[in-house]
Formats: sequence, C-alpha cells, structure tokens
Amino acid sequence: MATVEDLGMSAVINIISAFAFLLAFAVLRIQPINDRVYFPKWYAMGTPRSPERSRANIVANFVNTDVRTYLAFLGWMPDALKMSQAELIDHAGLDSAVYLRIYIVGLKIFLPLMFLALMVLVPINMSCRNLSFLSKDLVVSNIDKLSISNVIPHSEKFWAHIIMQYAFTFWTCYVLYNEYDNVEFMRMQFLASKHRRVDQFTVVVRNIPPAPGHTISETVDQFFQTNHPDHYIGHQAVRNANKFAKLVKQRERVQNWLDYAQLKFERRPDKRPTRKKGFLGLFGERVDSIDFYQQSLIELDKRIASEHQKIIKDGKAIMPVAFVTFDSRWGAAVCAQTQQTKNPTQWLTDWAPEPHDVYWKNLAIPFVYLSIRRLIISVSVFALVFFYMIPIAFVQSLANLEGLEKVFPFLRPLIELKVIKSFLQGFLPGLALKVFLYILPTVLMVMSKVEGYLSRSSLERRTAAKYYYFMLVNVFLGSIITGTAFEQLHSFLYQAPTQVPRTIGVSIPMKATFFITYIMVDGWASVASEILRLKPLVIYHLKNMFIVKTERDREKAMHPESIALPENLPKLQLYFLLGLVYAVVTPVILPFILVFFAFAFLVYRHQIINVYHQKYESAGAFWPHVHRRIIASLLISQLLLLGLLSTKKASNSTTVLIVLPVLTIWFHKYCKSRFEPAFRKYPLEEAMAKDKLERASEPNLNVKAYLSDAYLHPIFRSFKDDVEMGEVRKLNSPSQTSYINDHGDEP
Amino acid sequence: MATVEDLGMSAVINIISAFAFLLAFAVLRIQPINDRVYFPKWYAMGTPRSPERSRANIVANFVNTDVRTYLAFLGWMPDALKMSQAELIDHAGLDSAVYLRIYIVGLKIFLPLMFLALMVLVPINMSCRNLSFLSKDLVVSNIDKLSISNVIPHSEKFWAHIIMQYAFTFWTCYVLYNEYDNVEFMRMQFLASKHRRVDQFTVVVRNIPPAPGHTISETVDQFFQTNHPDHYIGHQAVRNANKFAKLVKQRERVQNWLDYAQLKFERRPDKRPTRKKGFLGLFGERVDSIDFYQQSLIELDKRIASEHQKIIKDGKAIMPVAFVTFDSRWGAAVCAQTQQTKNPTQWLTDWAPEPHDVYWKNLAIPFVYLSIRRLIISVSVFALVFFYMIPIAFVQSLANLEGLEKVFPFLRPLIELKVIKSFLQGFLPGLALKVFLYILPTVLMVMSKVEGYLSRSSLERRTAAKYYYFMLVNVFLGSIITGTAFEQLHSFLYQAPTQVPRTIGVSIPMKATFFITYIMVDGWASVASEILRLKPLVIYHLKNMFIVKTERDREKAMHPESIALPENLPKLQLYFLLGLVYAVVTPVILPFILVFFAFAFLVYRHQIINVYHQKYESAGAFWPHVHRRIIASLLISQLLLLGLLSTKKASNSTTVLIVLPVLTIWFHKYCKSRFEPAFRKYPLEEAMAKDKLERASEPNLNVKAYLSDAYLHPIFRSFKDDVEMGEVRKLNSPSQTSYINDHGDEP
Repeated sequence: MATVEDLGMSAVINIISAFAFLLAFAVLRIQPINDRVYFPKWYAMGTPRSPERSRANIVANFVNTDVRTYLAFLGWMPDALKMSQAELIDHAGLDSAVYLRIYIVGLKIFLPLMFLALMVLVPINMSCRNLSFLSKDLVVSNIDKLSISNVIPHSEKFWAHIIMQYAFTFWTCYVLYNEYDNVEFMRMQFLASKHRRVDQFTVVVRNIPPAPGHTISETVDQFFQTNHPDHYIGHQAVRNANKFAKLVKQRERVQNWLDYAQLKFERRPDKRPTRKKGFLGLFGERVDSIDFYQQSLIELDKRIASEHQKIIKDGKAIMPVAFVTFDSRWGAAVCAQTQQTKNPTQWLTDWAPEPHDVYWKNLAIPFVYLSIRRLIISVSVFALVFFYMIPIAFVQSLANLEGLEKVFPFLRPLIELKVIKSFLQGFLPGLALKVFLYILPTVLMVMSKVEGYLSRSSLERRTAAKYYYFMLVNVFLGSIITGTAFEQLHSFLYQAPTQVPRTIGVSIPMKATFFITYIMVDGWASVASEILRLKPLVIYHLKNMFIVKTERDREKAMHPESIALPENLPKLQLYFLLGLVYAVVTPVILPFILVFFAFAFLVYRHQIINVYHQKYESAGAFWPHVHRRIIASLLISQLLLLGLLSTKKASNSTTVLIVLPVLTIWFHKYCKSRFEPAFRKYPLEEAMAKDKLERASEPNLNVKAYLSDAYLHPIFRSFKDDVEMGEVRKLNSPSQTSYINDHGDEP
Repeated sequence: MATVEDLGMSAVINIISAFAFLLAFAVLRIQPINDRVYFPKWYAMGTPRSPERSRANIVANFVNTDVRTYLAFLGWMPDALKMSQAELIDHAGLDSAVYLRIYIVGLKIFLPLMFLALMVLVPINMSCRNLSFLSKDLVVSNIDKLSISNVIPHSEKFWAHIIMQYAFTFWTCYVLYNEYDNVEFMRMQFLASKHRRVDQFTVVVRNIPPAPGHTISETVDQFFQTNHPDHYIGHQAVRNANKFAKLVKQRERVQNWLDYAQLKFERRPDKRPTRKKGFLGLFGERVDSIDFYQQSLIELDKRIASEHQKIIKDGKAIMPVAFVTFDSRWGAAVCAQTQQTKNPTQWLTDWAPEPHDVYWKNLAIPFVYLSIRRLIISVSVFALVFFYMIPIAFVQSLANLEGLEKVFPFLRPLIELKVIKSFLQGFLPGLALKVFLYILPTVLMVMSKVEGYLSRSSLERRTAAKYYYFMLVNVFLGSIITGTAFEQLHSFLYQAPTQVPRTIGVSIPMKATFFITYIMVDGWASVASEILRLKPLVIYHLKNMFIVKTERDREKAMHPESIALPENLPKLQLYFLLGLVYAVVTPVILPFILVFFAFAFLVYRHQIINVYHQKYESAGAFWPHVHRRIIASLLISQLLLLGLLSTKKASNSTTVLIVLPVLTIWFHKYCKSRFEPAFRKYPLEEAMAKDKLERASEPNLNVKAYLSDAYLHPIFRSFKDDVEMGEVRKLNSPSQTSYINDHGDEP
C-alpha cells in the first residue's frame, strides 16, 4: 500500500509536470508559427490570429520577438474567463457551453461537500483510534486515519456519516435539479433565438416500404401529400454514392498534385516538372507533370459525370430513406412526433439531424437488421467490458513492484532505489490504465456505428455510454476489487446481492490513495498536457516540413477538431463517482477532485474558445445522460456506504440509509418526466411562435428554395464544379436527391 | 406430500362438482324466471330472451315446461361456438373477443407442447431410476417418477430436456408473434371499420396552467386557437360537481318512491298510500305519499337548479383539465401525440378515453401529486406483496394435517378417516389461497385509483399488473418455497443471484401435485361455478322478492357486469406460467392445463355472448400486457430450469441454456417496437383515410354539433329533464362544460 510519502512524491511529480506543460504552452502559444496549432478555431471561423500582435517583419511571422508577452505567464487564464457565457454560445455553440457547465456542476456539488466533510467528518474520524489498535497487524497509511476505517465498530459516531450522506444526497439533487432546469432553459432559448435552420423544417423518414410500379420518390411524395397535405413541400431521396465519392476523392488528389506542379513551375519557370507515368510515379515513361495531371483531370471528370448519370438513372441506387421537408416548423414537429402508419416499423419519422450531424453511411441500414445489430453489439460490449480487464490486470500486476522484480529480476537494484520505488508505485498503476484506455474509444465508436444511429451526436452519446460502463467496471470496480473481471463476474453471480456492496464497500477506504494518485495523473498532469497539444503540435510541424505543398495543404494540415465527448464525458462522470463515493468515506480526496474541476474548467474554456471547433450542434442533447450518470453515481455511493456500514455492525442505524436510494430513484424519475422531453421533442407552441414571427418579419421568404439542397451529401458540396452541380440539382428537382458513400465521413 | 390417490380423490371431487354446476346450470338457465340472470347481455342490448322459446301461458313465464329442452344437456356448448368471431366483435366488442384469444393462445401453445413432452420427455424420465434409489429415504409420489427428478445426475439424457426447452421457447415465441400480429390487425380493422366515435376527435388536456385575468376556458381556447389553428373547434371544461351529483341521486331515489306509490295506488285505487313525514318515514305526521313525493321532487328540482347555477358561475369549480375537440381525426391524432409547450408537465395531451371509459374523479389530480402518489403506491404494493403472505402461510400451515391436528386436537378422529384425509390434503391448500385472493382485487383497484389514471381501462390494467405480481410472489413462489414472505425476501437478499433459481428450481418438481390440485380447484370447478352464476342468481331472486317495487327496479336488480379483467388476466397468466415452467419438468401437468383452457374458453365464450356487457371499449388495449407477462413466464421457466439442471450436475450442458433468456428478451424488444405503438398511438395515415372517407360520404356532417356534449358528465345524461339540460348546454356553448363528482361512478 502506498504511504503518504509515496503520495507526496506523486503529487510533486504531477505538479511539476503540470507546470512544465503550462510553461511550455506559455512559450509556444505566442510564437506566430504555432498559431494554427493553438488558435485553429479562429482560422476555422475566418478570423485568424489575435489582433493584438503585429507582423512588422518576416522573423516575427515565425518567432515572437516581443519580450513583454513572455512575462505574462498564465496570462491565458483570465483571457479564458473574460468571454461571457452568451458570447461563448455565440462563438462556440451551445454544446460547448453546456459541456463547460459540467465542470461548474462539479464545483457546485463538491465545494460545500468538501467544507462540510472536512469540518465535520475528518475530526470525528481522527478522534477514533480503531486503526491504532489494528496497526500492529496491518500496515495502514496516515490517510486511512482520516477515513471512516478509523471509526470503531458499533460506534454511535456513524450517525454523523449517515446524516452527512443524507445532506450530500439532498445537496447533489438540488444542484442537479437547478442545473437541469438551467440547461433546459439555455437549450430552449438557443433554439428560439437561433436563426432559421434547415433541420427545423426537415424530418428523416426511414424504412419506406417499396411500392410496386412506383419509384421511392413517387411513393414518398404520394404518402406525404396524402397524410400531411397542408405542410409537405418536398423531399430529398438518398442515393448510394460509394463509387462516386471515391472518384471525387481521387479527383481532388490529382488537383492537389496539379497545384503543386504549377507552383513548382512558377518558382522555377525554366524547368517544367516531370514525373513517371506508372505506379506511384516510380515506374514507366517520364512525362510532363502539368500535362499529365490536366489529362487525368479531364479523364476523371468524364468518369465522374458518367458515374453520376448512372446513380441518377439506376433505381437500385435509391435507398428507402428520405429527408422530408415542410413549409413550417409546426408541420415538421407534427410529422417527427407522430406515428405515420399501422406498421410502426415502416415510415419511421424522426427529426432530421443537422446536415453536418448526419452520419450518411447508416442511412441505408434496413430496420429489421437494426434490432439484430443492437443485440450483437450489446453482447459484444458486455464481453468487452468483462474480458478487456484481463490484460489490464496483467499489466497492473507487473506494476506491482514485487511482481515486476519477479518477472525482470535484473531490474531489482534499480527498483530498490527509494525515489524510483516511490515513482513507480505512485505513477505506474495510473499510467497502465491510461495506456489501455487509449485505443478503447475508437473501438467503441466503431461498435456504435454498427448499431446504426443516424447522427454523429447520437453516435458520440452511445460511445460515451459504453465507455462509461467500461470505466465503471474496469477502472472503478476493477481498482477496488483486485482480480480479473472473470473472477469478479463470478463472485457477483455467486454472492448474495447484499454481499456485493459489502465486499466492495469494505475495500473502498483502502483504495483512497490509489484514486488520489489517479486523480493527480489523469486530472492534473493530463489536463495540463491537453492545453499544450503536444501531439497536434508535432504532427503539424512534421506535415509542414514534409508534406505541405500548397496553402490549401497547410490549411488541411491543422483542421480544428471537436471536443472528444465520447472520452471526456465518461471521464468526468468517473470524477463525480469518485467524489460522491469518497465524500463520506475518505473526505480528503475531495480537495484533489476540486482542484481537478477548477483547473480543467479553465483549460477547457480556453480550448473551446481557441482550439475546438464543433462539427455539429446538438444543442446540449447530451445533458440527460450527464444527469442520469451523476444520479447513478449517487446511487452507487449510497449502496456502497450501506455495505460498508453493515460490516461496521452499526446495523440499526444503517437501515435508515435504505430510504435514500428509493428517494433518489424517484427524484430521477421526476426529473426525467419534467425535463427530458425538452431534449427529445420540439414543442408545438415554440414551433408555432417561431413560424409566426418569421412569417411577420419575412413575408416573402421562399422556404422551398431555402431548403432545396440542404440535405445534399457533403461529397457534392466539396465538389466545386458549379456547372456540374447545377445539373445535379436540376435533375433531381422538384424532389431533391442526396447521396451516401461507404465511408460516412466528409472527404 | 400428496400421493396419486389424493390426487385422484381431488380429481373426482372437482369433476363431480364441475358436473354438478353444469347440470344445475342446464336446468336453471332454461327457466324463464332466470332469464335476467343468465341472459342479461340481451336485455342490455334491448333484445331480451332468445327467440326460440315461446310464452304460451303464465306458468311458462316462470318455469320451463317444455321437456325436450331439458334433454339438451350441455346444449349451450355448441351454441357458444356457433357465433363467428366477426359476429362476436359486433355483438360484444373487441375487448371481449381479444380476451377470448388468450384462451386460444393457451391452447395453441400447450397442445403441441403436451404431445411433444408426453411422447419424448415422459418416456425418458420413466426410463431412469433415480427416485427408486432415493425412495428408501424419501416418500415420493408416482407423479414424480414421470418428472425430471427421476433422471440420474450427470446423465446425458438432460440434453433431451434442454433441446425441448429450446423447442418450447421457439414455439411459444412463434405463437406469440403471430397472435400479436393478429390482435394488432383486429384492433386496426376495428378502429377503421367502426362508425364515427367521439373519442377519435377528442384529446384530454391535463395540467392547464392558470393565466391571471383569464378563465380556464379562455386560456384553453386561446392556446389551441394559436397552436392548432386549422383543426381546433372547441373544448369542454371539467367542473367539480360533487354536490350536484349527490342531489341528482337523491332526486332519482324520490322519483322511484313516487313511481312505487303511484303503482300501489293504481292497484288499489280505493286507498291512497301514505307515509310518515320524518326520518326514513318512521316518525312524524302521516301524510299522503304521492303528494309528499311530488312536493319533494319540486323542492329538489329547485335546489338542483340553484346548485347548477352556482357551479356554472363559480370559477373555482372549474378544474385545470379539459376535453379538447378537433374537426378531424388527423387533428386530434396530431395533438395527442405531440408535446405542446416547453414545460412538459403543462398542457399534457393524450387521447381522451371513450366517454364511458373516463374515470371522472381522477381528472382533478394535479400533475405534481401524481409522481408522489405513484411512489407511495409502489412502496405499498411492495409491502402488500411481501407481507400479505403471513396470513396465507398461517392458514396453509393449518391445512397441513399435522398442524391442524396440533391446533384442533379434537378433530383428530375425523381427520384420520381416509376419505376425509385425502379430501383435506387435496382440496384445502388450494381453497385457502382462493379465499385469501377474494378481497384482494378490490384493495388493488383502490390503490390503482389513487395512482391517478384517467380511464377505467387503464385502471383495470394497472390493477391486473399488481395482482399479477401478487400471484407470482405469493401463489407461485409462495407455494414452491415454504416459509413466510419475510423469510423468502430475506433469503433472496442474502443468497447469490445464481443460487435463487437453484433453490426454487429444486423445489419445483416436488410441488407439481400441489399445482395439479390447484388447477383442478381453480381451473375446473371454479370455472364451472362461473357459468352457474350462483351469487348473482341468489342476489337477484332475493332482490326480486324483497326490494323490487317497479319494473325499473327489476331492471336495476340485474344490470350486466363487465368481465373482471383485473382478476381474470393475472389468473390466466398464472396458468401460462405453470404450463411453461412444468412443460419440461413435470409434463403430466400439461393435460390438466389444456383441459382448463378448453373448458374455460367455452364457458367464457358463452358468458360473453349471454352475460357480460362491457362498460367501455378499449379495443384490446390490454394485449401488450398479456404478451409481456407470457414472455416473463417464459423467462422464469428458463431460469428455473437452469437452476434445476445446475443442481443435477449437468453443468457443461446447462451453459447452453444461457442463450435462451437473451434471445427471449431480444424477441420481446423486437415485438414491442413492432406492435406496441399500434396500441398506444393512432397512426396519421389511418386517421387521414378515415377522415377523407367520411368527408366523401357525408359532406354535410356537422362535427361540432356531433361532438357538442360528448364529454358531459354522465350525471347529466341520466338526468332526464331535457328542458333543464337544454339550458345547461346553452349556458356552456360554444365551449362545453363537463362535470366531476366525488364518486367517479355513474349513478
């Protein structure tokens, strides 16, 4: 078990590395050459560079020579706070602003909890001497003397812990309720104040049944003209455009090479660039590059045009999915929320995701397969959650020093050094977890994609849910109860349901030091490294040196990313879980968590302003999940405390705790019925009010023209040839056509 | 443990009593005097008496003197089958027809199961000799030798049972799927073919927020004129009419006495009937009855009119609930299925129940209290389910002969008689349960009413759900595992989740004889007594003798009841549970269950044709519940078999069974998404088609007039004074007013 010295060592290491990261960031961010790495958001918005810096000479374009700016170390922190919430929503969207609210909720919940717990529980725990009796047999750290383990069994002092658990639960619920209310209000205001959006007029229809003798477009037109006669204006059929997308990508690549060759020729007009004709330009006859690429382009354009004709004429390319548009928000809201036909698996309507949010590839999955796919994925997730732990346990057993010495005996003299020993014990277990967790989100995202959700935002939410289960079982439970997942699953199945919280509850106080280390590694040092953006920095400069040929390439070398919600949400939820579970058991963990929330809030606020650029806008649709998982954490903390106290023989008092889970579940149900519909449906009153306002302010608005190609596959947007595009549009009108490719991503 | 002789004794008793009931029925039903008891449905429909019987003389009005009709014993059975399903739906409504489908499903599921099990499993079980080895220590009945208990542990023969369980599961799912499909089709066809119904145009709105300076009617009008401008035509506000309802009831009573007095006077015109003026006509001055009642009527009419004025003028009498009507089914379907405002707890819209189906009293419960009420009732149901068992266990321990002898030692000589012993052991345990279950539905119905559901049909479904939980824990589990509910709950909490199915699974084969007895008592004798209608028969004739004064009274003495769905559905579901659980374990139970399904089908078909008259029509809305509970039974049977086999040490083969519950749950999810929406929502396509058809066939239909007082409180319907009613209507138009009384029942 790690001692307080190990913990101190770990704290020093993590604080030093955090400061090193911050210092490096302070220096690097003010170098103009790194602007695209640290301020990509501003480039994406078309306002590159902060205005305050001048560009007097060429050197200043790459290195900052103004000494004063170096002195403002940590100057980014006040900058990050300067922007008001309203400006932030305007600047970065509601998703980002709501994401930051999670940190605020963390601070709001845990700040009063920390004061209460440190002032009430810690003195009570310290006043007891349970562990001093036991310590002859057991090596206990000083941290444990501040925890509930130090209270003597049968003690009346457990009442304090029970009362505190009640107080913490009520406070947490109070904060959660207010925040749900607040986020709901923000969402509604955002939707009401926003300018016209195409997705407010559009409904996605899945599983259109085939009508013999009619094309899908005719079927759709006929169905909606019959059943929504007053508001239906048209639809965009979706066509399978895999090959087409591939050709367009190829054309783009050739165009790039042509640009490069022309650039080269401009610089050295005396020598026309040449290349070999064959594979990768390595074999075959040497030809003039510019001519070759121009020739290729012409050829590709021909093939694209013929492929395009094929897609349009071939009825098989049309998928039984369509984006149906209405002349008013009211009409779309009605269609999205109602059942269309007797057979509820046909003509499935739902709000269309924002065009950027659509995950095109999944549009073509038939409804029958969806439920089978979800069954398979559920089983796989279960297997992944419980069997992935085997390698982690193996590595953790290595990180255990005795195990390490056994496997690599030659390391013994090194390991026995006191500094290294502390370092390894403080740092390695956390690190092993981190490494393993690195590839996981990608795997989980692929699984979510297989499940067939239509929008990127729901894919991310599903991935976050899977990741949360994983973290809960493998990081939280896996760290508390040692042993493989197999063994755990086995013991859960063969233990009484009342025994499980006892088994876990008893181990909880002993693992406090481990989780403190984990918080310092993952919550302090990692967050500091987040702001440094080491990986994008290195990659950008490498690309700049070797690959970038044109200005367009440079732009592509650093396109701004979204916040990684599938990873960040579950991680944040783990901190809530740790905080709530340990608030009563080992309150000294709370300051560490609070530091994390405050520091991460600053860092992410800065990043959201300067770095991240959300690909889509779901208007905070993930909040119900955040709320639900914090409630789940609360329930877990109550059950574990119940288990822990029941081993302390304070049985008459612990029965009082049984009321808490019931009340918490009821609170959750109430919140769900009160707030969740606002995140799933669009109320008719709002839709009607917005429609009326718009009709009054813009009486001549042509909604049909506005919506004409809103849901065109992005492949056609990036494809700049407007003459060709005009043809595409003309061919598809009055009902527009949209396209799927096999990759699902914008090229 | 009961032996085969006990079982035979019980069978003889039950078959004899069933035949006695049938014989009594055969004689009693053809007596004209009993017509109102055995054919109330025909009276309710306005076509009393079967046409074939003649009424030649006065005696024939009371006693059937036609000898030939006595010979046709059991003649009702073919009669019951004669009516086709389409006619039955027309005659008794879809609810009744769908209810009968449950018996058909039982037959469809268990007939092939029985043949398979008897031909495959019973020979296998018999070929083993496990129990012959054990029988030196244990007294086992011959029934057990046909059960799975007789198979030797570690035997390869368990593969047969596992394969059978797979076959049974797939067959059950297949039947369930087809039947769900069939019932959904019946429902949709029923809704489509039905004549115009007011509930198709009406939506109930709850929790209308108060608008300062406006009445609720104004608020409703304004809201719906804004948000549903094209289809809204008006609404009926709901007023609290407790006192009014009381007065109307009182008036009716006086009217009855007046009728009686006038009848008396007609018969003996020489003597005017008199009564005393005071309390109950027992004290005070003697006055002329006819004058007195006429005077009272005039007085009551005045009070009713003034109370009526008060209700109309007093704004506080208006509840924040309204029935909102639309000019088309499409408009109503849209309003019912969409969210109206930002705050999802306000302006809650849902389909209005049929006017007869409305449970008026619950309309006034505010939304905030609903979730608290539901929390309280959930906790109460839990307590009821687990603590009600204490008295049952006490009585059952009495029914245990040794216990009985101990408590009542003087009974010993009687009990020791062989015939009586067999009778008691075969009959008493089942009877004890029956008696305890008698008052339960009433209690559960009160609980459901507290939960605040708006329609009688949903109240009945909720009561059925509660009753099912009760039966599952107390009848099924309670009979298998002896001990109080307390002890059971305790052992569930302190046993491993894998241990519970083992504990129960092991006891299952031993309880087969008990359940066979139960089926014979509850499924054979009780069903036969159902057709005899002993209780209504006695009560009707008693009323006829002592209370009935006028023809109107006679009509009231036997008003036809609805089928008691809250009791019958869970009972039926218990038979499915027993059948599925024992199909593999003790297949000899299956013939008993099949006899029950076939016999009960005939009896209930007869009763539905001749006796029961449904108060409301929910178009088979209870089917999803039936389906869900049969699936739950299937899951229970799989888990228990898993537990049972794991004690038989056939562990390598039992793991194969784990796949079944996963597949079953998946099947349930699929069915839910495929069929359940049809029972909750009204598809727009259907609504639009029906609207169009109607507009074409009746272009001059005035929907507004048709709907004008559809949702008037029934209190005003029974109130015959049309002049007064005209005034009520006039006062409330254009937006109609409806009324609540405190009793919630039609007077």
